[in-house]
Amino acid sequence: MTTAYQSLHSTFDRLHRFQHLKNIAGWDQAANMPAKGNEARAAATAELAALIHGIQTDPKLGEWIRAAEQESLDATQRANLREIRRTWLSATALSEEFVRAQELATSRCEHAWRAQRPANDWKGFLENFEEVLMLAREQAKRLSDVLEVSPYEAMMSLYEPGLRTADLDRWFGDLRSWLPDLIRDVLAKQSRESVQVPRGPFDLKAQRDLCEKVMRALGFDFEAGRLDVSTHPFCGGVPEDVRITTRFRVDEFLPSLYGTIHETGHARYEQNLPRALLGQPVARARSMALHESQSLFFEMQLGCHPGFVQRLAPMVTEAFGTQPAFTSENLARLLTRVNPGFIRVDADEVTYPAHILLRYDIERSLIEGTMEAQDIPERWDQLMQELLDVDTRGNYRDGPLQDIHWPAGLFGYFPCYTLGAMYAAQWFAAMKAKDPAIDDAIARWDFTQPFSWLRENIWLQASQWTTDELATRASGSPLNPEHFRAHLVRRYL
Amino acid sequence: MTTAYQSLHSTFDRLHRFQHLKNIAGWDQAANMPAKGNEARAAATAELAALIHGIQTDPKLGEWIRAAEQESLDATQRANLREIRRTWLSATALSEEFVRAQELATSRCEHAWRAQRPANDWKGFLENFEEVLMLAREQAKRLSDVLEVSPYEAMMSLYEPGLRTADLDRWFGDLRSWLPDLIRDVLAKQSRESVQVPRGPFDLKAQRDLCEKVMRALGFDFEAGRLDVSTHPFCGGVPEDVRITTRFRVDEFLPSLYGTIHETGHARYEQNLPRALLGQPVARARSMALHESQSLFFEMQLGCHPGFVQRLAPMVTEAFGTQPAFTSENLARLLTRVNPGFIRVDADEVTYPAHILLRYDIERSLIEGTMEAQDIPERWDQLMQELLDVDTRGNYRDGPLQDIHWPAGLFGYFPCYTLGAMYAAQWFAAMKAKDPAIDDAIARWDFTQPFSWLRENIWLQASQWTTDELATRASGSPLNPEHFRAHLVRRYL
Repeated sequence: MTTAYQSLHSTFDRLHRFQHLKNIAGWDQAANMPAKGNEARAAATAELAALIHGIQTDPKLGEWIRAAEQESLDATQRANLREIRRTWLSATALSEEFVRAQELATSRCEHAWRAQRPANDWKGFLENFEEVLMLAREQAKRLSDVLEVSPYEAMMSLYEPGLRTADLDRWFGDLRSWLPDLIRDVLAKQSRESVQVPRGPFDLKAQRDLCEKVMRALGFDFEAGRLDVSTHPFCGGVPEDVRITTRFRVDEFLPSLYGTIHETGHARYEQNLPRALLGQPVARARSMALHESQSLFFEMQLGCHPGFVQRLAPMVTEAFGTQPAFTSENLARLLTRVNPGFIRVDADEVTYPAHILLRYDIERSLIEGTMEAQDIPERWDQLMQELLDVDTRGNYRDGPLQDIHWPAGLFGYFPCYTLGAMYAAQWFAAMKAKDPAIDDAIARWDFTQPFSWLRENIWLQASQWTTDELATRASGSPLNPEHFRAHLVRRYL
Repeated sequence: MTTAYQSLHSTFDRLHRFQHLKNIAGWDQAANMPAKGNEARAAATAELAALIHGIQTDPKLGEWIRAAEQESLDATQRANLREIRRTWLSATALSEEFVRAQELATSRCEHAWRAQRPANDWKGFLENFEEVLMLAREQAKRLSDVLEVSPYEAMMSLYEPGLRTADLDRWFGDLRSWLPDLIRDVLAKQSRESVQVPRGPFDLKAQRDLCEKVMRALGFDFEAGRLDVSTHPFCGGVPEDVRITTRFRVDEFLPSLYGTIHETGHARYEQNLPRALLGQPVARARSMALHESQSLFFEMQLGCHPGFVQRLAPMVTEAFGTQPAFTSENLARLLTRVNPGFIRVDADEVTYPAHILLRYDIERSLIEGTMEAQDIPERWDQLMQELLDVDTRGNYRDGPLQDIHWPAGLFGYFPCYTLGAMYAAQWFAAMKAKDPAIDDAIARWDFTQPFSWLRENIWLQASQWTTDELATRASGSPLNPEHFRAHLVRRYL
């Protein structure tokens, strides 16, 4: 006889297969799809989303969940059931019709955004985006009723389950209390340092080869994934076939290279999730803050580590020829150069959190209904002035049009980036406590220790534990932002 | 109130959206997917195939079809209903479980074949292929019961609805009666002609650029499609976003270029199907013989036309530099060079039909159960000797492992290629009868007339008519292979 738990198990295997197709189609849309393919793709993806939603909200699932709670399950099965229940609660909060409308609206808005951003067309963007926002608010309200948290917390729970604004306000309040001063101090210090700027053009083929070489060194499995090009770099695909993207420019190579290192962190998490239960919610990456902790561990803790850069320098010379800018000292300075600017994804490690504070402020207000879409640019300008002392008036392209998240309907995601940076610093501190020689190993590009630590403590744990439990088991305590502050002070002051 | 016809209409729109995802995933599998992605992809695709099959075989469809037959419909709706009925009959012949098993078996066999072909591993191939064949026979038997035609005719009907072996035996019998003599005569004539072989290497980027340039000249819409690379070139994707593939080698450029021209013919058919009813069976390409008539019209009637080659020659020089081989006279000789060889897709226009006669002989015997998979190589060798006087013993890679069709479970498709060549010659004859100056226009690369003829008579007709009706409306008669023979004699003797 099939137990209720087994029925749930089969259902989630089936969902995993449909999600596979949705992910590949989504990757294709960003990496390959020509413009005229969009309407048909949006319709197809919406149809699949509705199907997935229909399976997720089948009343049988609720019955099976209740029945399975009475069945004899091992610890992993119980964790799986917990994750299944959470997925089911979130899914049943939304009707099929609603999901379909949302999928269509975001797909259209995102597609139009790809042309509107270069055209600085805020007005055109607003036309699609107002519907996306309206639907997101409705989504937040419905989720909030079911999950019994605030509407914005409900949206965050889609990416970081259990995250509360009270905690976030505490962590981000602390951050805001010292970040502007830190930025000022670092700028003052760096104003006395000279740095050589690399001179392009940088051959695109050589850039690509260098990215792939570094990905290999960082353990990316090219038999189970790819590197491609898209407007906005991301890590997509499926755990069995991870598709990361980057973008190349002939006049600079470091942003693509480090963007690629960032996505490689995401990719390795996916490529190393526990195979046996793949498809089940318990085998998924725990949360997006933890996901970002992987990408930022790769990009910042490893990639910008002076020892890492020491060995990267000759590879850069090999790729592009000799330049004064390619000494390891100079590259290290370039990579830790703090420069308040418009673009979040190009931001340095120190000013990046300021971009997140801004987005958290705005998107929370948008979801809570205390701000309207049309008011975004004004608030954006004001916060950019306050936090980074830069002027973005009229520059929508490098302002609120720069991110894919909102046009894609993703609200509540942004905090995960900075939480990820904080967790990444905490992981590195834990590794170093265990093995003080880690810096020397990194200088040899011997990543055995960090990767086995990550594999054991993060990747293979998947969704077995809550984020707090996982952090405590891995590093002795839940998130402690002090590690991040200490890391920045050590590296930059 | 919703009529039965309207319910069918919505159902087929929904199927079109799922088919979209299946096609994009299929294209991705051939063009992008890394090796370790295969198991998960096969499972995902099988799940979707089962879903599509479930919708196609929903008992409601049968009721709606019967009810719609009594409703007041216009001519297009009636044609649509005829096509829906045919789809439904074919689909209901197979259980969901069967479709799932077949999808898994063919996906595995095809994936393994990609490595087995270069390794010349016939034995390894047989292990997967025997299951594919067993399932194909079962499929043929079940379809045969429902469609009331022979098992092999039932398989052909999936690609060329209504095609009977009696007609095919007549057309192919005729072909076989004159083809070997014609080949001999052409070889004798050409043995007295000298031809210069182009010297590689041919820069891959320049090859790709040339392909894209020619595709543009031939009307391919890059806003609604792409050109990529795969082991076995094909035309995939969806009408709204057509994905064609080719393969490049540094030591030759003509096969890729003409392969691309071939796929461009397929692509333009898809890109120009009537938009309003896209998604409905009546708006699909009529059949695969007609599809091949488009690709072969582009490749052979247009692309190898002496006037076409005249203007291509300077483009070739521009792409690869000056060579004695790049005069238009020499290129025209190269493109019409007859050379009996192993590989169907590399075969010239005159020996190509011999490859089809061979495959028709073998696959019909396989489906009818008068031959087993293990006996293919022997029969293959024998027919290659008889038809083309070449020896393929032990060379599986360039023998029965060369085509994707059988590993992918496609039996009954091969005859369409040669029927397509015959139709293409018939279309050109019809155009020329209407406008004798067509040769001069082609020499100017002015394709207005052929493309508007094709658009009007083939592309926009989609599946409104049976193949015989369409051919008669377009050219005055059903298929008449005499046009093909006359074309070959005119061009080659």
